[in-house]
Amino acid sequence: MSVYYALGLGLGTHNRHQQWLDSFYPTPLLSPSADLVAACLSVLPADASSQPLDKTQCEQLAGVLAEIDSPEAKRQAAIARQIASSGRPGVFVLLRDNSGPKTVPEAYLKLHLLSHRLVKPHQTALEGIFGVLPNIAWTSQGPIDLAELPERQWQARLAGQVLSVDSVDKFPKMTDYVVPTGVRIADTARVRLGAYIGEGTTIMHEGFVNFNAGTLGISMVEGRISSGVVVGEGSDLGGGCSTMGTLSGGGNIVISVGQKSLIGANAGIGIPLGDRCTVESGLYITAGTKLALLDDNNQLVKHLKARELAGMSDLLFRRNSLTGAVECKTNKSAVALNQALHINQ
Amino acid sequence: MSVYYALGLGLGTHNRHQQWLDSFYPTPLLSPSADLVAACLSVLPADASSQPLDKTQCEQLAGVLAEIDSPEAKRQAAIARQIASSGRPGVFVLLRDNSGPKTVPEAYLKLHLLSHRLVKPHQTALEGIFGVLPNIAWTSQGPIDLAELPERQWQARLAGQVLSVDSVDKFPKMTDYVVPTGVRIADTARVRLGAYIGEGTTIMHEGFVNFNAGTLGISMVEGRISSGVVVGEGSDLGGGCSTMGTLSGGGNIVISVGQKSLIGANAGIGIPLGDRCTVESGLYITAGTKLALLDDNNQLVKHLKARELAGMSDLLFRRNSLTGAVECKTNKSAVALNQALHINQ
Amino acid sequence: MSVYYALGLGLGTHNRHQQWLDSFYPTPLLSPSADLVAACLSVLPADASSQPLDKTQCEQLAGVLAEIDSPEAKRQAAIARQIASSGRPGVFVLLRDNSGPKTVPEAYLKLHLLSHRLVKPHQTALEGIFGVLPNIAWTSQGPIDLAELPERQWQARLAGQVLSVDSVDKFPKMTDYVVPTGVRIADTARVRLGAYIGEGTTIMHEGFVNFNAGTLGISMVEGRISSGVVVGEGSDLGGGCSTMGTLSGGGNIVISVGQKSLIGANAGIGIPLGDRCTVESGLYITAGTKLALLDDNNQLVKHLKARELAGMSDLLFRRNSLTGAVECKTNKSAVALNQALHINQ
Repeated sequence: MSVYYALGLGLGTHNRHQQWLDSFYPTPLLSPSADLVAACLSVLPADASSQPLDKTQCEQLAGVLAEIDSPEAKRQAAIARQIASSGRPGVFVLLRDNSGPKTVPEAYLKLHLLSHRLVKPHQTALEGIFGVLPNIAWTSQGPIDLAELPERQWQARLAGQVLSVDSVDKFPKMTDYVVPTGVRIADTARVRLGAYIGEGTTIMHEGFVNFNAGTLGISMVEGRISSGVVVGEGSDLGGGCSTMGTLSGGGNIVISVGQKSLIGANAGIGIPLGDRCTVESGLYITAGTKLALLDDNNQLVKHLKARELAGMSDLLFRRNSLTGAVECKTNKSAVALNQALHINQ
Repeated sequence: MSVYYALGLGLGTHNRHQQWLDSFYPTPLLSPSADLVAACLSVLPADASSQPLDKTQCEQLAGVLAEIDSPEAKRQAAIARQIASSGRPGVFVLLRDNSGPKTVPEAYLKLHLLSHRLVKPHQTALEGIFGVLPNIAWTSQGPIDLAELPERQWQARLAGQVLSVDSVDKFPKMTDYVVPTGVRIADTARVRLGAYIGEGTTIMHEGFVNFNAGTLGISMVEGRISSGVVVGEGSDLGGGCSTMGTLSGGGNIVISVGQKSLIGANAGIGIPLGDRCTVESGLYITAGTKLALLDDNNQLVKHLKARELAGMSDLLFRRNSLTGAVECKTNKSAVALNQALHINQ
Repeated sequence: MSVYYALGLGLGTHNRHQQWLDSFYPTPLLSPSADLVAACLSVLPADASSQPLDKTQCEQLAGVLAEIDSPEAKRQAAIARQIASSGRPGVFVLLRDNSGPKTVPEAYLKLHLLSHRLVKPHQTALEGIFGVLPNIAWTSQGPIDLAELPERQWQARLAGQVLSVDSVDKFPKMTDYVVPTGVRIADTARVRLGAYIGEGTTIMHEGFVNFNAGTLGISMVEGRISSGVVVGEGSDLGGGCSTMGTLSGGGNIVISVGQKSLIGANAGIGIPLGDRCTVESGLYITAGTKLALLDDNNQLVKHLKARELAGMSDLLFRRNSLTGAVECKTNKSAVALNQALHINQ
């Protein structure tokens, strides 16, 4: 096994002070082989971590990598050669362990790992990423430093050019860096780089996925997957539904959705759901929602707070439309239900 | 009357294997005249249906069409001449009857018919369209085959160009093909080609319209019009409201909204509404919602499921904020209400 | 103090009939100094209000402005000089008082004043702006007159160019004109020019801000700020939440949110909120919602309509999940509450 965490060879965009605004890695590597790393470090400083690359360094990298007999190394050699020819600012990132990113190229490598499905949400440390990433104007002329934007906008107008500012954010949209296989994303402005979109997932126009969050397999997503939220295989999120994120509102509870569950349109959850759960359209369940737990005979088992049901499977959440009471119905008997609750706590 | 269903003369985009990614028809024809079709078939194969056109064929088409004395034929002649000069891949589509699309150019012609308001939602057969349409990267450099995208993205980066991937979907946004008269669409990423947007409709930023769905006249749309849903003249959809589509959740019930109805903000419907109905902001009515039906004196007529009120007019749906019960109030007497219910069933 | 309301020197886009589609002012001035205005009027018609500028006029303006010894005048002189060199259609707007805009350049100047934070929402008269602003296709080739669009689209296709129509609206997106300091706006398509975005505000992907509306300071906005709505310092809008605007649904009540308040995800308000208020996720409070007012001991004070609580502080709105009743809880005693209600009315 590799003693290194990850490696990225790519290029990026600078502001006028040669500071990185973004970086792009065509084929990032998780657990790069020791041979490959040793070859790179033979022509770069031994402690290289976020290393800008000039043309000569790129050519040297291409040379040493081409000598290694693995498809992985040949691919990186080709990348190095292309960067050398392009004259664009190259960058080499080597992460020795899985700690929070310290530089823009490191942060981008970690976000690439997620969106390339090399790591799942929560598997790579992202502590400090908000402090590392600059706020950027993402425009039709590429990323622009906000301090340089007004002049760029005015010069574009004077030249009769269009400069569309499509986002002002620390995170770019994922699809400008990675489009994973087997997905549809109707409005890509709503999926940040660092999202993990499972094979077979469709994100409709009202869907949204934050970084460090996503779907593990086939899903129809028409609602919002907040930062940190993971949705299991076969689960669907109805139009406009909400999942509370760790960044806002969800507090310490990490929200997730198991397999084959359904959150209805305009509904919402502040607790994790297990498998085969349903939340009725329009119903918002927060951790503190007091509800009536009903057994498989529709008999009241007890009143409790939704957080006590966190992560349990085979639950249907609904608001009784005759009484207004929030109910949770299950296909289990009262005895089985009480046992499950004890295990859960 | 024409014996042909529709005709489209236009151009499109190919992938590297000369397969169609999309096609564009400046002036598609519903029920093209027999003369016009005969002229076209005089220079094309007799069984032409989705016919790629080379420069010579376009010139021949322009010639025979120009000899027909109708504005319709002159317009198509001009189109053929322009395609011939452009050197772009031309395409001729002739639909002999209204069956499901078999090719990409056929599917695009049908979607054009809808968005040009030549047919209303549900009037043109779309069976099989998901299988016919490839999933495409819609980019600032035009449609790109997903298999070709990673290399295109990397080459663009190497060249210092911007390649923005704005959507990954089978359906493009409507306005890149058709902008019907008398509409506003604040964020066009939210209206798919194949939507039918009535004259006088405004789609605000939170509005959405799927293909084979739309508005028949003046409407303010700040909510989501799902596939198959039709909204009548003078009806408004409040911000973030939901209509269950035939593709997801709505099951076999085709949802529609009559005239002068209002669905409140963050509300939703799983049943069709008649005319002059109101659904209170924040209330989701599914087909199975049990509710209290109140007459014009606010007296309870009976409890029933919302699906029994499908398509009825002059109803106000609300949740009683003191009791939590969902109520449906009407301006009819209990007797009239019961009669209406019997007719409805 | 200046006797003039505002001045804008910039350039714009014409349709084929030399009518303005938009205009752009790099540094608009509120209350321009008398010197500066006098200098401008010395080379322009004395009654100039929306004055198209040719190259000579721009050079003359640059000359007279450069003679004034103030940074403000030097800046406008530079702008005039740059427009002269550019050959683009220049425009000079002088608003003598704060009345509704009469021309496109006037309307754009007022919208610039708001987004540059020179005036707050409701501080500048916008009466008649919908009639003044034309409906425009906002495209990747700049603003295009809708009457000219179909031909432009077809010519672009023939030339193998991409012409993306990103919005069909009277208002452009703000960030193509102004990006105020200290903000993040994840999806800029959802913020119209004329929005006022306070320093420290983040508008997430699901956030939206209409013109003449916005935030006064630090806010996390994941919901919709409708036309006319102002959100105070430290208040947050949860994902998909709704505020009723003066243009639709809110009627005569102008909605606002005080400081340090929170509207939960998928919630909504039809009344203004004071400071330190909370609306529970998923709960929609309209002006007519009847609710149970509870004191600091959770005892019922009285039943009332939500509009009676308009603008009051320290309120928590929730739906009792056991009874379905909407409740408003406060940290005040029943006596203090009743006093506050009397003052409020």
